[in-house]
Amino acid sequence: MFSIRTDLAVEARELYKEGYAGEIPGVSVEEKNYEGVKVVKVSILNEQGVQAMGKPVGDYITIEAPDLKERDLKLEENVAKILANVIKQITTLSAETNILVVGLGNWNVTPDALGPKVVSDIIITRHLKEIIPDEFGNEISAVSAIAPGVLGITGIETVEIVKGIVDRIKPDILITIDALASRRIERLATTIQIANTGISPGSGIGNMRLAINQESIGIPVIAIGVPTVVDAATIANDTIEYLTNSLIKQTKEDSPFYTVLKNMGSEDKYALIREVLNPYVKDLMVTPKEVDSLIENISSIISKGINMALQPNMTIEEMNQLVH
Amino acid sequence: MFSIRTDLAVEARELYKEGYAGEIPGVSVEEKNYEGVKVVKVSILNEQGVQAMGKPVGDYITIEAPDLKERDLKLEENVAKILANVIKQITTLSAETNILVVGLGNWNVTPDALGPKVVSDIIITRHLKEIIPDEFGNEISAVSAIAPGVLGITGIETVEIVKGIVDRIKPDILITIDALASRRIERLATTIQIANTGISPGSGIGNMRLAINQESIGIPVIAIGVPTVVDAATIANDTIEYLTNSLIKQTKEDSPFYTVLKNMGSEDKYALIREVLNPYVKDLMVTPKEVDSLIENISSIISKGINMALQPNMTIEEMNQLVH
Amino acid sequence: MFSIRTDLAVEARELYKEGYAGEIPGVSVEEKNYEGVKVVKVSILNEQGVQAMGKPVGDYITIEAPDLKERDLKLEENVAKILANVIKQITTLSAETNILVVGLGNWNVTPDALGPKVVSDIIITRHLKEIIPDEFGNEISAVSAIAPGVLGITGIETVEIVKGIVDRIKPDILITIDALASRRIERLATTIQIANTGISPGSGIGNMRLAINQESIGIPVIAIGVPTVVDAATIANDTIEYLTNSLIKQTKEDSPFYTVLKNMGSEDKYALIREVLNPYVKDLMVTPKEVDSLIENISSIISKGINMALQPNMTIEEMNQLVH
Amino acid sequence: MFSIRTDLAVEARELYKEGYAGEIPGVSVEEKNYEGVKVVKVSILNEQGVQAMGKPVGDYITIEAPDLKERDLKLEENVAKILANVIKQITTLSAETNILVVGLGNWNVTPDALGPKVVSDIIITRHLKEIIPDEFGNEISAVSAIAPGVLGITGIETVEIVKGIVDRIKPDILITIDALASRRIERLATTIQIANTGISPGSGIGNMRLAINQESIGIPVIAIGVPTVVDAATIANDTIEYLTNSLIKQTKEDSPFYTVLKNMGSEDKYALIREVLNPYVKDLMVTPKEVDSLIENISSIISKGINMALQPNMTIEEMNQLVH
Repeated sequence: MFSIRTDLAVEARELYKEGYAGEIPGVSVEEKNYEGVKVVKVSILNEQGVQAMGKPVGDYITIEAPDLKERDLKLEENVAKILANVIKQITTLSAETNILVVGLGNWNVTPDALGPKVVSDIIITRHLKEIIPDEFGNEISAVSAIAPGVLGITGIETVEIVKGIVDRIKPDILITIDALASRRIERLATTIQIANTGISPGSGIGNMRLAINQESIGIPVIAIGVPTVVDAATIANDTIEYLTNSLIKQTKEDSPFYTVLKNMGSEDKYALIREVLNPYVKDLMVTPKEVDSLIENISSIISKGINMALQPNMTIEEMNQLVH
Repeated sequence: MFSIRTDLAVEARELYKEGYAGEIPGVSVEEKNYEGVKVVKVSILNEQGVQAMGKPVGDYITIEAPDLKERDLKLEENVAKILANVIKQITTLSAETNILVVGLGNWNVTPDALGPKVVSDIIITRHLKEIIPDEFGNEISAVSAIAPGVLGITGIETVEIVKGIVDRIKPDILITIDALASRRIERLATTIQIANTGISPGSGIGNMRLAINQESIGIPVIAIGVPTVVDAATIANDTIEYLTNSLIKQTKEDSPFYTVLKNMGSEDKYALIREVLNPYVKDLMVTPKEVDSLIENISSIISKGINMALQPNMTIEEMNQLVH
Repeated sequence: MFSIRTDLAVEARELYKEGYAGEIPGVSVEEKNYEGVKVVKVSILNEQGVQAMGKPVGDYITIEAPDLKERDLKLEENVAKILANVIKQITTLSAETNILVVGLGNWNVTPDALGPKVVSDIIITRHLKEIIPDEFGNEISAVSAIAPGVLGITGIETVEIVKGIVDRIKPDILITIDALASRRIERLATTIQIANTGISPGSGIGNMRLAINQESIGIPVIAIGVPTVVDAATIANDTIEYLTNSLIKQTKEDSPFYTVLKNMGSEDKYALIREVLNPYVKDLMVTPKEVDSLIENISSIISKGINMALQPNMTIEEMNQLVH
Repeated sequence: MFSIRTDLAVEARELYKEGYAGEIPGVSVEEKNYEGVKVVKVSILNEQGVQAMGKPVGDYITIEAPDLKERDLKLEENVAKILANVIKQITTLSAETNILVVGLGNWNVTPDALGPKVVSDIIITRHLKEIIPDEFGNEISAVSAIAPGVLGITGIETVEIVKGIVDRIKPDILITIDALASRRIERLATTIQIANTGISPGSGIGNMRLAINQESIGIPVIAIGVPTVVDAATIANDTIEYLTNSLIKQTKEDSPFYTVLKNMGSEDKYALIREVLNPYVKDLMVTPKEVDSLIENISSIISKGINMALQPNMTIEEMNQLVH
């Protein structure tokens, strides 16, 4: 079956609710609003929730700030602070915690370069604590970071690289950053998802071999993600939705044609989308024209948020001096 | 009215022929086929052709090589040679000719960076001829080049910059390179258009103030372009085409619904597309995921073709040594 | 004769004073000190000063802030403000002034990329004033900018490109930004020179054909420069100075050897330097290992300073939103 | 004691021979000459050789091609082929061999980016053999690659990252690529050293904790290196050598001054160099101005050589298609 891909729990929920009335069994939702920022916590509580949402049990917190599209320095700072707070709530951090930050994705493909970009602005301290412990010992956390690249670049599954490093340096917590796909254009580079479930490529069901999570790595994994692309299939699919809805409105409910439209199921839609996009379905992406600078901005917000969460004893100015 | 944007004469012709049977008045077409490469020459002959095609009088030669998508060094070399021949046919070049090559577009936006990229591999000789004329005098043409940036970066209309430089250094011919928009995904980074009409932003009608052509610049302008994006609107539009066609087939010709569908004109389609994409219509682009490396390849082919055309007395090896 | 190259008036003065006691005829000097920042104004007043300094008549203001090497955000802001003030003092600016900013140098060579980097962060407004004059008319100055590249890249003398553009868009003032060579390692990326004399390649004497100044361009030219390299010859020369001084100290004043050393003139030194560096004298540069990030920092300071000077009606926040 | 740093065995030998007549005990040397290329094999045979050379027991093969400075495509191809042959001689490779290539160094610092650059052009096949073994099984070797970054970027010793990955994916051989420091300007980007001893930071004596070699990693390590910088101290030191030699020639052998000069030992020289460069001794580098393009070229030669050695069943054309 054709499935519109979404990496966001809030979107999985939206999709579910398009089909079914009422709340989703096994899923709890909490929403808070700040000035220009909405924070939604979707918790998948049990197997029922897993089935409905297609994602593993855990908490998925989404920070949505549509106005990030226009550069607003104050908003950017607020989002960084909210992100820092979410990270601190979702995990337990102290100056003793040893954290490894992993930037996933391919630095050669602009919309996939988010993870490596964030990692390049993380304040790295693990070696300082080891080399000059007297100076840094109790003040700062030990933070290390790596951007391992993708399978096509290394020939090695990312989880293997990460597991290898974790086995050597034994951090307490892993934080991953990754570019996601969204169903909604307006979420591109304006939404951040933080999950305590790690990363499960291919919707979290099956393919556990490639997952980067507590089970595969052996330590808690916080996954931070930002949608940077919409699949071209989403555009085609949305067009079809609108078009059929629009035609249905113009058709009498008792006409035989109404039935045809109503019953045009996923299969038919999929056939249509394939006709439109084939043979490019998998290889196309839809992005805003200014994708380069949008990703630059959101990367800088995320690295700031992570730095604030991991180094609560540093001032913003000290951080700026330490970031290259 | 909503108009699907295309910069390619071959596509303008295709669009015309979707609506009307028969050849286009005032337009002549010639087609040649080489191994894996199709060369189509569309000539707009008179005002009738201008009206039908929405482009100025002149020759538009398109080199189409769909297999450029997979790296095939032999094909790449062939396309470079064909490009060189087209350039030589469309203009008159000798060792005395003084040529200015202009790479249009914004180097910060990957799909718009084609022009600047090509320019960076053009063999620059104008200063050598001036400084050491004895060594280079009769062997090489005087080639200079610039990538002036875009209005948002410079605050200056590109035509003003180009005109200013042309007035100072008085070249005989101007060659521009620019990224184009196509209607067809399969043309992205696999098709090259060479026109002797220059560049007329916004479809060549009106807005002559911004055109870079013989009229505005005072010397012949050869415009080389490659489609690197498809507008998201094209995807939506294509979906609607397929969907309505598909529904029409399922509907009896004498039913009133058939009429509704048949008559769903551009206006309705536009409304639908706006619903889908709004408010992002102008800001979205659809590109292949590997757009960075595709543009790298086609840029290198184009610069090779231009170098071969402009420096017929140099061997490939001499050229490789001169290119940085 | 071998001459240690310096682009800085303060260094030309230092060199002069090494040879001669007392102040330099035809040159006046003023010095101010702020917290961690020294501002020196060297004014060459007449032909006597021109001869002594090897630079044209005019004002050369140097901002020296050695601590810029360690990232200190407060100091960076102070230097930007001081730069803005110097620019405002050295020229006359109003909201009516039309300014063209030109980033000189080669973006492919890290230490020469300063000019293009600064230009990429200048707030560009000229087109906004033209397109939407009601909104911007009296609030902002018309600023345009270009990074034309270097002769080896374009085949065109930079002055020709600049003159061509100036003739078309007729700005009131030209501001150039360029990377300089210094004699002193500690000045690299920590010193800014602002001169109202324009740029005169090759020490300002002769070669007026290539100068970018009021004479060649027709409007006042403010030249902003930052040393980013020390010639390798400087290192060799300094070594020789130290060594001969050190040997002289160990030698009796009446010994014949003392005389030999004392009389080892420029010619002999030059021969030695040539032995050491030959055949690389011109092609080597000495830079700090972290040159990339140092140039990043100082570029950002300079663009901030220029933006503050040119747009006094904007707040820092408005500027940040407008810079890409 | 101040020691001029060299990573090249041929230079360690040169330095030794400056001080002592005759061949070095425990070291054998073989030299071959091809058109424009000199290949020198220095073998350190025993503890005596280790003491004299300051490097571990093993073979160090140097390919020297000074003309690489001017782009000569034929020479480049020859050097790539010679490199491929040296790699094949120094190790045992078959289609069954599983190879991990590691690009050492910091991609943000131009002269240190050699390793990461080479890695980006290595043909990666390990995942293809695993995913589609039928198609690739016996034809190609399993090659994987990573550029792990440097301690300041990751907070993790490189050897830890490499060891972690090796423990997971169990390759048979490790190949490292690294930028080196040379004593001689003319060797920059024109000399390649291949050693079967791995990498021992800090001259191979002591600090074994950081070495990447068979002892630390558990598999054979081939280290490929290219000098890309000369320390500024080398320039100063060379100047002093030339100057003292020159002064000695002018001095009578029986004069007391002759003795002073003759006896100016390392200590005094070090003091002088420190006076000249202090406090920048460690932070300065001397590079050719065109360092960016030189490193681009030599990187491409090395990746070609490695690809030829590791994939003897592929044609050059197949390789070009597989390299991004």
